[in-house]
Amino acid sequence: MRNIDLAYLQNLDKQDSNAHLRDLFDLPAGQVYLDGNSLGALPTATAEKMQQVIKQQWGQDLIKSWNSHDWISKPTQLGDRIGQLIGADKGQTLVADTTSVNIFKLAAAAVAMRPERSKLVTETGNFATDLYLLQGLERMLGDRVQVVAVPRDQVLEAIDDDTALLLLTHSHYKSGALWDMQAVTQRAHDKGALVLWDLCHSVGAMPLELDACGVDFAVGCTYKYLNAGPGSPAFLYVAKQHLADLQQPLSGWMGHAKPFAFSDQYQPHAGISQALCGTPAVLANAALEASLEVFEQADLVSLRCKAQRLGELFIALLGEHCPEFALASPADSKARGNQVSIYHEAGYAIMQNLIERNIIGDFRAPDILRFGFAPLYVRYEDVWHTVMTLKDIMHTGSWQQARFQTVHKVT
Amino acid sequence: MRNIDLAYLQNLDKQDSNAHLRDLFDLPAGQVYLDGNSLGALPTATAEKMQQVIKQQWGQDLIKSWNSHDWISKPTQLGDRIGQLIGADKGQTLVADTTSVNIFKLAAAAVAMRPERSKLVTETGNFATDLYLLQGLERMLGDRVQVVAVPRDQVLEAIDDDTALLLLTHSHYKSGALWDMQAVTQRAHDKGALVLWDLCHSVGAMPLELDACGVDFAVGCTYKYLNAGPGSPAFLYVAKQHLADLQQPLSGWMGHAKPFAFSDQYQPHAGISQALCGTPAVLANAALEASLEVFEQADLVSLRCKAQRLGELFIALLGEHCPEFALASPADSKARGNQVSIYHEAGYAIMQNLIERNIIGDFRAPDILRFGFAPLYVRYEDVWHTVMTLKDIMHTGSWQQARFQTVHKVT
Repeated sequence: MRNIDLAYLQNLDKQDSNAHLRDLFDLPAGQVYLDGNSLGALPTATAEKMQQVIKQQWGQDLIKSWNSHDWISKPTQLGDRIGQLIGADKGQTLVADTTSVNIFKLAAAAVAMRPERSKLVTETGNFATDLYLLQGLERMLGDRVQVVAVPRDQVLEAIDDDTALLLLTHSHYKSGALWDMQAVTQRAHDKGALVLWDLCHSVGAMPLELDACGVDFAVGCTYKYLNAGPGSPAFLYVAKQHLADLQQPLSGWMGHAKPFAFSDQYQPHAGISQALCGTPAVLANAALEASLEVFEQADLVSLRCKAQRLGELFIALLGEHCPEFALASPADSKARGNQVSIYHEAGYAIMQNLIERNIIGDFRAPDILRFGFAPLYVRYEDVWHTVMTLKDIMHTGSWQQARFQTVHKVT
Repeated sequence: MRNIDLAYLQNLDKQDSNAHLRDLFDLPAGQVYLDGNSLGALPTATAEKMQQVIKQQWGQDLIKSWNSHDWISKPTQLGDRIGQLIGADKGQTLVADTTSVNIFKLAAAAVAMRPERSKLVTETGNFATDLYLLQGLERMLGDRVQVVAVPRDQVLEAIDDDTALLLLTHSHYKSGALWDMQAVTQRAHDKGALVLWDLCHSVGAMPLELDACGVDFAVGCTYKYLNAGPGSPAFLYVAKQHLADLQQPLSGWMGHAKPFAFSDQYQPHAGISQALCGTPAVLANAALEASLEVFEQADLVSLRCKAQRLGELFIALLGEHCPEFALASPADSKARGNQVSIYHEAGYAIMQNLIERNIIGDFRAPDILRFGFAPLYVRYEDVWHTVMTLKDIMHTGSWQQARFQTVHKVT
């Protein structure tokens, strides 16, 4: 095998059929950004699009824009476009609220659809909000349901005839470890349970096949691999066959069959719009629309291959140059998302030092350094610079002088 | 009394101590905009602020902005600034989610705080989402609670010893009719019930005194009189004395005492941040920040006086020139918000015709025309042009040729 060096990686960049997509982003000069799994980069088209929506649609056309610029249809229009990225036929995906709020809607709906069952199964160490929303539901419903959170290797056996819902994050936020969506969904269905997939770290990162896997429900954010901006609206998916029986408790006016009739009695919309609650976030939806344009030019299969290759090269180079680190992600790239996580007990200081040197990853307590390989804009040569900088940090011990500052990062 | 004519109104504009505030907005040329009670106008500073946040904070500083631009504190910072407009001491007001979602959080919390009580009292004809969210809670909790919606004149007597919560909209979305916040809150407290005020049509429109009135909970939107843009984030208020006992079910990770510890067990933040759920809407919060700057230069007492005067002049001129219309709002300006609503059986077509002539109000089925007098940018002379145009529409019968187009408007 040829030695991996900078020239080799630069050559891969030259041959990369996705390399031109990087030009669709405004990236900080001289920086290696490996945190797109936390906050995606800014698409170049977004700023102009936002100016247009703010100045013309809001400023000049004002209230008329609900019709003339079709603000009212964006939740379903954008939902269908995300649907194309996750293998969902039209009419099942909706842009609304946050991932957290959408988890509550769908977990509550699952409880209502399984009135004889009491368990909500998930894994310990799942992304915190997934656990917390199930706990919120449990507190609210008294003895009606119990959250059963077990270690990852015990999840499948925890699903039983009393399980109403299984909630898992498809690509784990810390390790990137992937669940087998089809097999796990089937296993839950064999027990009569419903499945809710959290796709935050998967959507836009790899091809997904929700319809083909028979998934019941899904949620996800749009500010990571979809690049819709900090705190951008989330999405949810409800399989067609559940739309007629869905009973989500956040029954706001925009989910009504006729929102503008202002009738006193709630009557859910027959389609996916029933999962809407309040007034849609128009400006944020515009940023999402701009960021989804990028995917019109992209091919998720090819992007996923690139991300896997980036991760493999990172791991190989780390093994060669930085033996101090242990892998916290699955070694097999098919078993992990587009991130690679590594352990080091001094991880926090090392990451601070790396960030000071303009290579941006992030840290998760107590000892994990995360590196996201967003294939739309990360280059092969970025892998080289990252590993060489890590090598220098470890060899010189410069991390011991790294500034200790409070780090808040949004997964 | 002097005759009200254009010269008189133009003179009022000349003397208006708030007239300069109109210059802080980008308004469409040649248009009279009387729908600020539905969607507020664009503050001039907003577009530039948004560009800065998008291009620099998101685009260049990326994930670091959670700290360096303090994205993480915006929900409480902006909440406290709204608190100044509603008579709330610091630490009780939070920017998050939508009005609808926040109603659910607080209504559910009220139910948990009154475990022996089963009634959720509100008025029929309240804004639809207020009714629908209580109904969602009712469906979800089975027999635990019942929504009791009664006509406006029966609300006070419907509050009894079994009432957990009273939910009312302070300024009615259709008529603008105001509830006496202090007296109604006191009445509910006398019966041991909690009160949740919907301030959507009041915040930024008039001085409010939540603390002084002993209010328990409140919610409101920021896209009407606060001018934060279409679908901008909402706010909620929880009185200090309830923060320790609040149990809101949308217990997302941002409401945790230590969100970045990612622990498996939810532990609410001790303060108002416990009412956060998912990741805050950073871009939308930036627009809200810009729009709140306008209020730093404004005086709500004086603005409210101007709005009342605008409404009074509108009603007087209508009476003189357009006797076809009946008043759908309280005649006494102290008893209504900053809008005036009028009845006409052909209201829909009349409003369409008015909009074609570049005077923007809105319509609420079956027969109400609404006119919002947002005092930050509506001029006295606008009242003249509106009434004279209505007069012409009625005299010539031009409304009978008005285009019938579907009108979606967000309250």
